Order: sequence, then structure tokens, then C-alpha cells
Amino acid sequence: MPSSKSANPNSRGNDEMTTPPRRHVGQYVASGDWSDYWTTRISRAESGKIRVRGYPIEELIEHLSYSESAFLLLRGELPDEREARLFDLALRSGMDQQFISSAACAARYTASAFPDSPVPALASGLLASGSVTGSPQESAAMLIEAEGWGLTHAAAAVRAVDAWLDRRRAVPGLGHPMHKQVEPRAVTLRRIAMECDGWRQHGELLDAIEIELARRKERDIPMNLAGALGALLADLGFDPLVIGGIGALSYSMALLAHISEEVREGVPLRIIPEALGAHYAGPDDRALPEERKRRPRP
Amino acid sequence: MPSSKSANPNSRGNDEMTTPPRRHVGQYVASGDWSDYWTTRISRAESGKIRVRGYPIEELIEHLSYSESAFLLLRGELPDEREARLFDLALRSGMDQQFISSAACAARYTASAFPDSPVPALASGLLASGSVTGSPQESAAMLIEAEGWGLTHAAAAVRAVDAWLDRRRAVPGLGHPMHKQVEPRAVTLRRIAMECDGWRQHGELLDAIEIELARRKERDIPMNLAGALGALLADLGFDPLVIGGIGALSYSMALLAHISEEVREGVPLRIIPEALGAHYAGPDDRALPEERKRRPRP
Amino acid sequence: MPSSKSANPNSRGNDEMTTPPRRHVGQYVASGDWSDYWTTRISRAESGKIRVRGYPIEELIEHLSYSESAFLLLRGELPDEREARLFDLALRSGMDQQFISSAACAARYTASAFPDSPVPALASGLLASGSVTGSPQESAAMLIEAEGWGLTHAAAAVRAVDAWLDRRRAVPGLGHPMHKQVEPRAVTLRRIAMECDGWRQHGELLDAIEIELARRKERDIPMNLAGALGALLADLGFDPLVIGGIGALSYSMALLAHISEEVREGVPLRIIPEALGAHYAGPDDRALPEERKRRPRP
Amino acid sequence: MPSSKSANPNSRGNDEMTTPPRRHVGQYVASGDWSDYWTTRISRAESGKIRVRGYPIEELIEHLSYSESAFLLLRGELPDEREARLFDLALRSGMDQQFISSAACAARYTASAFPDSPVPALASGLLASGSVTGSPQESAAMLIEAEGWGLTHAAAAVRAVDAWLDRRRAVPGLGHPMHKQVEPRAVTLRRIAMECDGWRQHGELLDAIEIELARRKERDIPMNLAGALGALLADLGFDPLVIGGIGALSYSMALLAHISEEVREGVPLRIIPEALGAHYAGPDDRALPEERKRRPRP
Repeated sequence: MPSSKSANPNSRGNDEMTTPPRRHVGQYVASGDWSDYWTTRISRAESGKIRVRGYPIEELIEHLSYSESAFLLLRGELPDEREARLFDLALRSGMDQQFISSAACAARYTASAFPDSPVPALASGLLASGSVTGSPQESAAMLIEAEGWGLTHAAAAVRAVDAWLDRRRAVPGLGHPMHKQVEPRAVTLRRIAMECDGWRQHGELLDAIEIELARRKERDIPMNLAGALGALLADLGFDPLVIGGIGALSYSMALLAHISEEVREGVPLRIIPEALGAHYAGPDDRALPEERKRRPRP
Repeated sequence: MPSSKSANPNSRGNDEMTTPPRRHVGQYVASGDWSDYWTTRISRAESGKIRVRGYPIEELIEHLSYSESAFLLLRGELPDEREARLFDLALRSGMDQQFISSAACAARYTASAFPDSPVPALASGLLASGSVTGSPQESAAMLIEAEGWGLTHAAAAVRAVDAWLDRRRAVPGLGHPMHKQVEPRAVTLRRIAMECDGWRQHGELLDAIEIELARRKERDIPMNLAGALGALLADLGFDPLVIGGIGALSYSMALLAHISEEVREGVPLRIIPEALGAHYAGPDDRALPEERKRRPRP
Repeated sequence: MPSSKSANPNSRGNDEMTTPPRRHVGQYVASGDWSDYWTTRISRAESGKIRVRGYPIEELIEHLSYSESAFLLLRGELPDEREARLFDLALRSGMDQQFISSAACAARYTASAFPDSPVPALASGLLASGSVTGSPQESAAMLIEAEGWGLTHAAAAVRAVDAWLDRRRAVPGLGHPMHKQVEPRAVTLRRIAMECDGWRQHGELLDAIEIELARRKERDIPMNLAGALGALLADLGFDPLVIGGIGALSYSMALLAHISEEVREGVPLRIIPEALGAHYAGPDDRALPEERKRRPRP
Repeated sequence: MPSSKSANPNSRGNDEMTTPPRRHVGQYVASGDWSDYWTTRISRAESGKIRVRGYPIEELIEHLSYSESAFLLLRGELPDEREARLFDLALRSGMDQQFISSAACAARYTASAFPDSPVPALASGLLASGSVTGSPQESAAMLIEAEGWGLTHAAAAVRAVDAWLDRRRAVPGLGHPMHKQVEPRAVTLRRIAMECDGWRQHGELLDAIEIELARRKERDIPMNLAGALGALLADLGFDPLVIGGIGALSYSMALLAHISEEVREGVPLRIIPEALGAHYAGPDDRALPEERKRRPRP
């Protein structure tokens, strides 16, 4: 199965052929048959025995690295060497970039208020991984869709740039508010991916889109990490939803580092003071209308 | 206690000596000086340049594995070989065990309702990593506290078991609702940790506590994964808060696998039907008192 | 200002005329001027003094009910009597319906694992308010968009039903997996809204859509609560994003009731057992390939 | 029933007498009987029919206000007039105070990254309601515990202040980083509660604690909103967990207002720039050791 998957790099996940039709809860209510309501293919657990994707968990813990085990969990089959190397690369490219991250900031505010467990702040930080911030979900979706058009990369790039400039005046995966000339992580990820035979159709299409956008804008708008990561993971055969999740989780250890620092050395009950920019622009002071005050108290 | 842990065995994390006093936001308000309000030691980012714990991010992406880079983020220094091997072991031991997990279930319910992004469901699943479920935070706190008593392990075990049976009638890190005889992951993690010189004071103390609890209860209550993981990570020098975070995140890829499966093959808008156990035990049908109905409508 | 708003029921929020252009963080980085980065119109706080939308908070606490104060927070102006009555109706119509809710189930799983604070479970439950479950965000967006077409309601209904059946084979706001004949909350909300002059363009358009869908499907697919709530709140002038938030929060007290019940009387560490439907459908047992086992341990 | 509850102010919730013993999931696994695993007393739903705490949902929507329906959900019985008035007061006292709130800040960061749905940002904001920030959970727990000592309020205040100064050098419910002289919401809530016969044992005990702390510190450390709210809700018979949840939710409409403002007028992808205080205090630039670079690439 993994070999056939490798043969088709556009394959999303490993189970396409056998995926049952997705069913609505109303169908269960109507039929009264709930026997397959909670079906999973990921793992099986009984007393004293756990199998993950069919393999004994003892063997997996013994013989797979963390990133290999993650690949198995997500895809259902073991990665080959190339896949293992590239997937580890994807996981480690985000790291951290100080406070240039909505996620780190959200996590620190939550940790400053809820320091007893790291979990609420981790959740808060992960939630700040949406369409605007560096999620590779949208870049990957764009690339996978455009690959499906059956055009040359140059032609697909023109069409994709047209569509996105029209829709949002920006193209997913390109541009960064601070790294105007070069995003060092994106450049490094792309270079290593190329050296490991991991920059394939989706990566090359992103290159073409970068060139097309520069032509259109008459200035370079370099690839950001979300773009490079989306391309790499799409080339590895992941689908956009999972790619978005991997992207969010690739910051999770950095979030935990921020949370630990916040709890140990930070400022409990963080606020934004006037001295750091808080600014009120609403209505001037006013009193409640007299008729409101004369009503009986609620 | 974990004497090995480099030069200063009591050190939790790497920055103790230089940690500034934690400050209250009221002190900032009073002083008006906010210049060090947002201080971090994790990374520094400027246009085109990112340093993590001082190292150029390009070098880190090129030369560290994912788990080594996570260790660096959390601890501030590179792991040596032993630490790298043991930390990767810690990350990969959780994997997944079907639906024997509050976290997987919470994640699937959220994914069934919010399928457009994986992030809400990931957050929901992580939040189900608290004091009751398999968080190693509490086990680690117990072990680290007990190591500080300066007793033999046998004596510390008696005292710890006394305290916890009194407080909660259960001891953190021991026992599992389904794996009554043996938790296969805990056993495997402990064995490999021993082979890699990673089962040290905290591990041996947990062994002693397991023996003491069996003596007291006159039956085996075997170590669970949270216990084994807490001991291993405490022996590696992590503090309980970070250990709790690592424990939660060690399930994150499994959560993502469940979320992906739920969105692709699951049941949108999941409920709990009567057929699967929903049961009402509240008041019988009753009508609002007449005087409520005669009031003007709110 | 509130009176002028009432004159235009399609008005979304109260600030349209004066809304500054939304700005990208890159513009701040480029300009170096961060003076208006953290601007708000909601409230102003100084030592001993708080103003909300300009009003002294003491007067608001004294003279407004909870739902009036919520309206003021969200809209910037006091509700008139009609608006106050209808907004309170919107907030109270969801209540609870046992376990027929992904949100209640997600909250209970999280509470069973994290019982020390109600907040993680509340967050988990709210996150299960997405596009699939009963969020009124999408219904409202559909109605507001269709109102903008400038067609008769009958014509707009045809076009909207066409579009949604094509896109998703379902129309937002109509249908329920269990309440096949009538959703009692939707019916009650609609009736009271009509009696309070709160069922206006968007409500009537939803009525037309319900009729058109029944004609097309040759059976009734009755309005659900998300539909009725979306119509009511759109008629009150809220925008879809805020309507989605109100919808999620309208279940928040029910979630808290479930969380309290779970922590006090529920089952710590909830799972899904085979007896309640857990079912494994993945690969059969298999062993790791020998060459994996011969590799040096990670 | 509500009246009898008033007779016993220490009563937490309404179901004490009949609460079944809390059961461990291991007991279900052992017995194989899962018939009461998913039991609830809150509501019952069948096709076309919903009962909440026994009452037809149509009657509740028609005749109860939002805050009355919330009370019923949480407590199981209808509030009397005094309870309804005081509970609405509790819900509306928080409102908003600009950016003097970790919760509003966390919510805005998340909204700036995930603007498509209000729900992730709501969750993020609620999660910033922990032990440090203004949660009334801890104040209420302190007051309820101290009421149980059977001492005079003056004597209980001495003991409580002793305990908390020893434990944390601060007393829950007293003090605010900005409102040094008076917290306007706390003062207003307490005044109105008194006028409505809602400031009873727990309120008066908090008054005594405030006096005792001032005596000890030789300066006033005034009651904050979390303290006043915790006292009021404890006097209404809620338990600390539910009080914490009500406290968090009492900011939820303000969070939604912030989220709406952020999405409509804010700054996508918010960061903390150097100009607003970001400061790096970690190791100087350094290179990876040469032996790391010579290892084979991971």
C-alpha cells in the first residue's frame, strides 16, 4: 500500500478506495442501527494490548522515531526513508520567532491568567492558527487544486494568481509582514527538501506562482513558511486539513516554551496598558437617559 | 536528586540562577516602566534573521531532528545523545489507544461540528488532558516533591502512598481502568529508558511506590503511562508544568489522526442517542406555575 | 444613533460610516508608528473609573438588565424596548436538549478529564459550534446575502435553494436529524418574534425558503433553531460573525450545567467502550518489517 | 425548594440528597453494565419534544427571561424573584474594561489569526479565566470553606487571612493592579446586592476579611469584582466550580464585542513589536558545535 501511494504523489491519505460514504446522524436515527457509529481505523485497544494501524505498540515504541510514528498515525502506513526525512523536516521548520506570532501572544496571555496547567494556554495558542496567520492549510489547498487543473505550472500560476488577487488581493503562501526580502525558514526548508527529493509538483508550482506574482507586482514577494510547508506536505501526499493541523502543531513546542517562560518568569494577569499602545476611540462620556434610570431596576 | 542531570541535579529547566523575580502587573502600573514587560529568552527575530536560543535557525533546521529542536526550545540548551534519545522516546510512547481516551472523544465531537479547520478540535482534545486523565504533570510533581524529602526510596514511598491514599484514595501514575495487569506502553517506555540510562532517581522512586501500593492493597496496581512518562521526564530534568505539556502534546498527532478520520469518514453533528446509553434521570414532566405564566412576558 | 439604526434594519452593526480601513501589520512595521495599534471603542478604564460605550459602568449595572448590557456591548448603543425584548428571546431559546448536541458531549468529555476548573470544558464545548452544528452564522449569512439581491422573497428563495442544494445538498437553517416534523424551539422563537414585531425581512425570507425547499423535496424540512435564530438576529441588525458568537454563547449556561453535573455525578476519564459502539475497522494485526527492527534504535 | 435551600446557605446546588456516588470508569469496565453511563438530569429530548428540568421548553422560552432560564439550567429549580434579580445582577456586573484583561487580549490575538468564526477566539478568551485573573472560583471556595468553620466572621477572617498570606501572600477577592482605591464594579454590585437582600453570610464574611487585611497591611486593599461576585453567588447557593464558570461567562459578551471589533477594524496577524516592548534577553548569537554539523542530516 505505501508503495502504491508513493507512485501517486497526488494521493490524499491512504484510504481513498475503501472510504465508506460519510453518513448523516439522521440516517442513524432513522435506522436505529448504531453498530458502526464509532468506527476507527487508527488503533485497537484491549486489556494489556494496543495495536496502532495493526502494529503492536511495543514494536512501534521500540523501533520508530517520534516523527515516523506520527507519520504512521496520520497516514496508516510506515514512511519510507525519504518520507521520514522530509516529514521530520516539516515538523521542525517552524520553531519560534519571538513575538512575531499571534499564537505565542495568545498563549502567553492565557498562561498569565491560568498558570496551573499548561493545557489551556496551549489550546489558546493553537487556536491562533487560522486562515490569516501562518497556516499551510490554505496554501496547500490552493496548490492541490491548481495541480488538478492539468495545466503547465506557468499557466496554472497565472490562473491561481488571478483568482487570489481577485478574491483577496493576496496569494496564500507568499509574503511576510517582517521578512520582506527572505523568510529564512522557508528558504532553508525548500533547499533541504530539494536535496532530499521532496520538492516536487506542488513545490515547483509554488515556485511558478512566486515568479508570476513578482512579475505582476513588479517586486519580489517571497515564499513564506506556510507556503513552503504546504507545498512540501502536499508533495508528501497529505490533504489540506491534516496539513493545517501539522502546521499548527509544528509550533506547539515553542508555545510550551513560551508558556513555561510566562509562568516562571512572566507577568501574572497581563494587560495592555496605555504605555504600550492601548487607545480608546469610542463615544465620549455620556449619561444614561433619564427614562432609563426611572424604570424599575431589573 | 537526579544527580546526573548535569552539574546541578535539582535544576528544573536551565535558567534558575538568573531568573528574575516574577513581577506583578501592579508593579508595572505603579512604576510606569514597561521596558521589560515582554521579555523572552527563547528566540529573537528581525527582518530576514531568526535566532533560537542564540543559534541561527538555518543551522538548527539543517542539523537537528524534530525532537532535538523541541528539547532546545524547552530547555535552552542542546540535548546530548542520551537526552535526545530519551526525549524522543517520551514523545513517541503515547501514540493512540482507540477511544480509551477522553481527549480523542472530545476532539471527535468537536471535529464533527467544526470540520473546516483541524484547530478547534485539536484544542478541544488537548483540553481533555487534565488531572484525571493521563497527564504526567501530577505524577511528576509527586515524584519531584518526594525526592526532595531526602529519604530512602522505600521510606519516601511509604510516605507518598500514605499522603495520596489519604488525599484521594489513589496514587498518581499507578492504575488504569482497562489495562489491569499491565500497561504495555508504560512497560515498554520503562524498559527502553533503563537500557538508555534514563530510569534514574524518579524512575526508581516510582518503582518503590508501585511496590508499596501493591503491598498496601494486596494486589498489583501497575504503573500507567502517565506515571512512567512523568518519571522519565523528571529524570531528564523537566519541571511538572512542562511535563504536563509534553504529555498532552504527545497525543497531538493521534488527535489529528482522529480529527482527519472524523472529518473524512465520521458522522457530522455527533450526538449520544438512547441506543448508546443516553438516559434521563431528572424531574418528571411538569408545568410552569400559573403565576409565572401570568407575568408580563420578559 | 440607535433610532437611525432602527430605521435601517439591514444595517450591520453601528459603526459602518466611520470604520477605518483595516490595516495589515506590515504597514505598522513599515511606518514604525504603532500609536493606534490597540484601538478600541468598547470601553475605557482608568484607576477607579470604567466607561462602557461612554456610559459610567455604575449606571449600567444599576439600570440595565444582563441582556440589555450585552446588546450595548455588542452594538455600541442601548437597545430600545423592542430590541431588548427580542434580544433576550434570542439568548434564551437554545437552552439544552440532553445529549442531542456535539457541544454538550465535547464539554462532558473534557470535564471528565479536567475537573478542576470549568473553563477548559466550556471552551471545548463552545468549539463544537461550527458550520455543521447549530450555528446560526451560516443561515444568517445566507439570508443577508439573499436580501441583498433585491428580488422578491419568492424569487430569492428559488435562487438560494438552487445555490445551496448545488453546493451542499442541504440548505442552512432547515432540517434536523431528530426533530423531523417540528423543532419546538424554532417554532416558539418564530411565534414570539412575530408577536414582538421581530420577524421582518430575513424572517420572511426564511419562511419563503422553507416553502421552496418543501416544494422541491416534496416533503417538509422544517426550520431549525439555527435558522430561526439567524433570521431574528439578522432582522435585529447583527452581522453573521456576531450572530455565530451569540448562537454559541446561547448554549453556554447549558454547557456549564452539563460540566457541573459531569464533575459532581459523572464518570471521570470517560471513554467509548465496545459496549457503547466502539468498533475497529483498520488493518489486521501485523508485525513491523524485519529491516525496521534491525535498524539502530532511534 | 429554592426557599428551603435559602434556609441552608452552605448548601451547594440542589441535588445533594439524591446524588449517586461518583463512579470510576473502571467499575463500568469491570461490570460490563453501561446502562447509566450517560445519565443527565438537565433535559430530555425526543422527536418534536424537549423538556428542561421537567418543564416544556415552549413554556420556558415564553415565560422566563434569559437569566431566569440560566438559573433553572444550573440549579434545577426556578429562581424566586429575589434570586432572579440577584442572578441577573451577577451576570451583568463584569461587562468590560478595555484591555485591562488577559481574556480580552488573548481573544483579540486569536481573532486576528482566525477571523472566519468567532468561536476559536471566544474559547481562547474564556481560557484566560484562571486562578490568577478575576475568577470568582477561588474567592468563593475560600468563603464557603471559612463559613464552614463555625466561627464568628471576625475570627474566621483572622484565620482565613493568616492562611492565605502564608500560602500566597495575597487573599483572593481583594486587591486590583489598577483600581487601587476602589473597584467601581465591586462597589456597585455589593451595594445593589445589599439593597436586594443578597449580601448575606458570605458577603459579610468577605467584608470582615477586607477589614482584617487592611488592619494587617495598614492600608486598604479593596474588594475586587471576583471577590464580590464570589460572595454574591455563594450566598445564592452556587458551588465554586459553577461560580467560576459564571464568572468566566460574565465576560463572554464583552469578548464577543472585542472579537467583532478585531475582525472588522483590527489588525490581522497581530504581533508584539519592539516598539511596543518586545525584548530579547536570551543567549547571544552562537554557532552549532562543529560535531553537530558533521553528523549525518536527520
